[in-house]
Amino acid sequence: MKPPQHIAASLRRHASAALSHPPAGRVSGTSCRNGTYAATTAFSTTPTPTPTTRRHIHTHPVRRNGGASNPAMAFPCLDALETRSATLKDKVRSDSSGPEPSYTAGATQTFHTDEPFLLDWGGVLPQFDIAYETWGTLNAAKSNAILLHTGLSASSHAHSTPENPQHGWWERFIGPGLSLDTDKYHVICTNVIGGCYGSTGPSSVDPADGQLYATRFPILTMDDMVRAQFRLLDGLGIQKLYASVGSSMGGMQSLAAGVLFPDRVGRIVSISGCARSHPYSIAMRHTQRQVLMMDPNWNRGFYYGGVPPHAGMKLAREIATVTYRSGPEWEQRFARRRADASKPPALCPDFLIETYLDHAGEKFCLTYDPNSLLYVSKAMDLFDLGLENQRAAAARRAEHQRSLRDGVVAAATDMSCSLTLPDQPYEEQDGAAVSEEEYLENAADVARAEAQAQTSYRPPQDLIAGLAALRDHPALIMGVASDILFPAWQQREIAESLRLAGNRNVAHYELSEEQSLFGHDTFLLDVQNVGGALKNFLQ
Amino acid sequence: MKPPQHIAASLRRHASAALSHPPAGRVSGTSCRNGTYAATTAFSTTPTPTPTTRRHIHTHPVRRNGGASNPAMAFPCLDALETRSATLKDKVRSDSSGPEPSYTAGATQTFHTDEPFLLDWGGVLPQFDIAYETWGTLNAAKSNAILLHTGLSASSHAHSTPENPQHGWWERFIGPGLSLDTDKYHVICTNVIGGCYGSTGPSSVDPADGQLYATRFPILTMDDMVRAQFRLLDGLGIQKLYASVGSSMGGMQSLAAGVLFPDRVGRIVSISGCARSHPYSIAMRHTQRQVLMMDPNWNRGFYYGGVPPHAGMKLAREIATVTYRSGPEWEQRFARRRADASKPPALCPDFLIETYLDHAGEKFCLTYDPNSLLYVSKAMDLFDLGLENQRAAAARRAEHQRSLRDGVVAAATDMSCSLTLPDQPYEEQDGAAVSEEEYLENAADVARAEAQAQTSYRPPQDLIAGLAALRDHPALIMGVASDILFPAWQQREIAESLRLAGNRNVAHYELSEEQSLFGHDTFLLDVQNVGGALKNFLQ
Repeated sequence: MKPPQHIAASLRRHASAALSHPPAGRVSGTSCRNGTYAATTAFSTTPTPTPTTRRHIHTHPVRRNGGASNPAMAFPCLDALETRSATLKDKVRSDSSGPEPSYTAGATQTFHTDEPFLLDWGGVLPQFDIAYETWGTLNAAKSNAILLHTGLSASSHAHSTPENPQHGWWERFIGPGLSLDTDKYHVICTNVIGGCYGSTGPSSVDPADGQLYATRFPILTMDDMVRAQFRLLDGLGIQKLYASVGSSMGGMQSLAAGVLFPDRVGRIVSISGCARSHPYSIAMRHTQRQVLMMDPNWNRGFYYGGVPPHAGMKLAREIATVTYRSGPEWEQRFARRRADASKPPALCPDFLIETYLDHAGEKFCLTYDPNSLLYVSKAMDLFDLGLENQRAAAARRAEHQRSLRDGVVAAATDMSCSLTLPDQPYEEQDGAAVSEEEYLENAADVARAEAQAQTSYRPPQDLIAGLAALRDHPALIMGVASDILFPAWQQREIAESLRLAGNRNVAHYELSEEQSLFGHDTFLLDVQNVGGALKNFLQ
Repeated sequence: MKPPQHIAASLRRHASAALSHPPAGRVSGTSCRNGTYAATTAFSTTPTPTPTTRRHIHTHPVRRNGGASNPAMAFPCLDALETRSATLKDKVRSDSSGPEPSYTAGATQTFHTDEPFLLDWGGVLPQFDIAYETWGTLNAAKSNAILLHTGLSASSHAHSTPENPQHGWWERFIGPGLSLDTDKYHVICTNVIGGCYGSTGPSSVDPADGQLYATRFPILTMDDMVRAQFRLLDGLGIQKLYASVGSSMGGMQSLAAGVLFPDRVGRIVSISGCARSHPYSIAMRHTQRQVLMMDPNWNRGFYYGGVPPHAGMKLAREIATVTYRSGPEWEQRFARRRADASKPPALCPDFLIETYLDHAGEKFCLTYDPNSLLYVSKAMDLFDLGLENQRAAAARRAEHQRSLRDGVVAAATDMSCSLTLPDQPYEEQDGAAVSEEEYLENAADVARAEAQAQTSYRPPQDLIAGLAALRDHPALIMGVASDILFPAWQQREIAESLRLAGNRNVAHYELSEEQSLFGHDTFLLDVQNVGGALKNFLQ
């Protein structure tokens, strides 16, 4: 392809001049003199409202006798999204199986109850299901059950079963003689309520009107999920767990189970979890929720029966994936390699790390219900085992039950109204209001004070008090130094709080960067360190 | 508001039962017995294709005599986006000033050249502008000029000027007796090409056809930006800079300036920058580009004259903001405080950290050109001062110049085709292909090897060789331990590479967490540590 004639001529003229420079660019100050240093604009001051480009375009007549200086870019990543949207649209049209989605990953057992379930923030589920799976045999005394809690997007399929032979997410950790030894224990793993793998969630039918809940599903908490799990245990006749075990979000639930039902839990294992979500992890989940809600196909949650917000889901998963591993691992695995170094760069993915993220998003975007992601992710943000939060939740629970006994759910209904953003969204609430500038001026002092506090870090008294219910529970707390989502200080905080609450039976392990560079995902991968510590602790 | 009668009755019945439990939830195993533990579903196995919810809905007749169990959620954050879209649409309709955007922040000086500019990846700018600002006086020998390079979204307005009295982004660092001492030095700050503050970029007119470039703007590199800056220096008659100074992306450019034009740069200051982008930072920028490109208003870059992709820009900035500060700073500043604790949680922002991010996005979303964000962000990803990359770029440059001299820009045109994603996007390229599983099984070994390598970290020989041009330049390299975007190891890598290349004049400072918790943003805030070291070094 040839450039427009006048440009070609101009380029030839200047290219010859340019070639007189060494290619590596050791250009002397006297070169490039044939570039017009336009006297009319030199050292001129551009008034604010007039972009300089416009002025130039008026002084340089527009050349209309050819194409653009450069070709338009192609966007294969957007083409792919549009193709998928079209395919899904066709599928929706031709599919006679109705609008109900089926995210369920495989065969499960199901517990159902018609007893209404009051949620901590005022919502109600008139009835609910819990889909779950088990491995190993429950003994006659029903004293060998281990409740295994899942991460955000994991299903109950922690291990293969006769009904579902696919490998589970903890396949190498569960089995005869393994970390969760099925020769000894009866392992139960549930799908959380709010999720989409068979337990009641936003993609379930609201029995009150026969429509899917969608975003009429009420706000959910970790405590709600755990309280629903204990309804299942009631149904199974299991009075007390041998242990409550979980990683990531499951590590939150594992602690919450002990705090809510101290008499019904024997031991606690919390891996790469926390006792309260911290702002960085809230921020990362916030961006995932926002990108999903921004997808027009999300349609404020009412996409069932139509094209789901697959693009938003894909990207939300990409952001999440960034938080699941560590920079050093990627440095070693992908470095700066491009997917195809023979091609020029593009605005769509081209570095290997980008195609890796793209692929992670692809794998996920149609396998999990977008509304479940929103609700479960929000529940993680709301998690806080501090005493004050526990007391407030208990008070709300009692209040709702009173209201319901009186036949009025006004409180519950009002509570479900959503927050409107305040006018000054980022103003501090506590203490004297300070301007951003004042804040920054005190920055150095503040940083020093914080650093000093960290050196002699003591968890807040509120959290120590909040974990007091666990003072007699043997506890295994594990963290990973390379984890950026649930950083190691959060597991140190749990262990230290438990000890300060009087627990003399706390085992705390922190895997160094030498032991694992896999960040938050370590709990899925490290049979030796994570699995080994778990096995020893349970014996 | 009252619940539907039958639900109210059911709730009353169960609420009374529930109230017999202590509110804090020490429920015994025999409670909750009035919950129907449906015999038909207990321990049943659900076949894969049938969601359990559907089966239940058939066994429980749908109740149609009332509303939903819970109210629908409100989404004030989406309402706000839609309102802005509508407002912008009205504005576009009524605005007679034409389609050209004006992101320019204030009065600047402008350099213009009609000499075509060949970009490193094969594109061409037939002519270009550089908008810039200066402080202090250029001496007669023109030997006291300092070129100050900007970060991604910063303009040339580093300090107030008589023409634009607004405070600049380094207001407290520039001035008589300050870090960049205007009694001694003539400080020049430019707007990068590819940006939107008056220098030629995607929102500029392509003189070839009089249309705005949009995504017909060619792929850009740091080297391109720096080479354009040196055209300005040519125009100003400045043969040699006293110093090249920059932070963040500017810290990349500062190094690149020395490497490209070693004879024209006296000293190098690179703060919170790097010599090559690493995969974690590429990943974070990738998600920002993707969220922006996913906004339907982006329209593959051709939104000028219409509603810009403000929602995508807002969210891209929110993601960026997550990388600009540190978790510990937010822990201290926002902790788990909610914007309005009197209201129930919502799926839209409600934690203070969320409203802070929301506000950061709001402030930015209409002040920077979305296409500029894509091009400049991509240029950062492509940055690599390793020798191999430098040689490849120099070879491409020479090749393009030859082609142009011959009147053919075929190479340039072909190079601009965008990459298509490979079928197996995340497969490793180098070495034997390994499956994800094999990879994970070797994980522990790999982690140990990497950790060992880190202990005795030596930068790659390719980078040491790539920085050899700077062996005689006094260099100040600064980093911040709490920076997650340009982590401190990257500045250590620069300093160590320079030393290993033979430079005996390298000053390297790393601010500890005790000195700053402000992460990447430290360079904007810390007059004492950053400004102090800079001042000492320049003297």
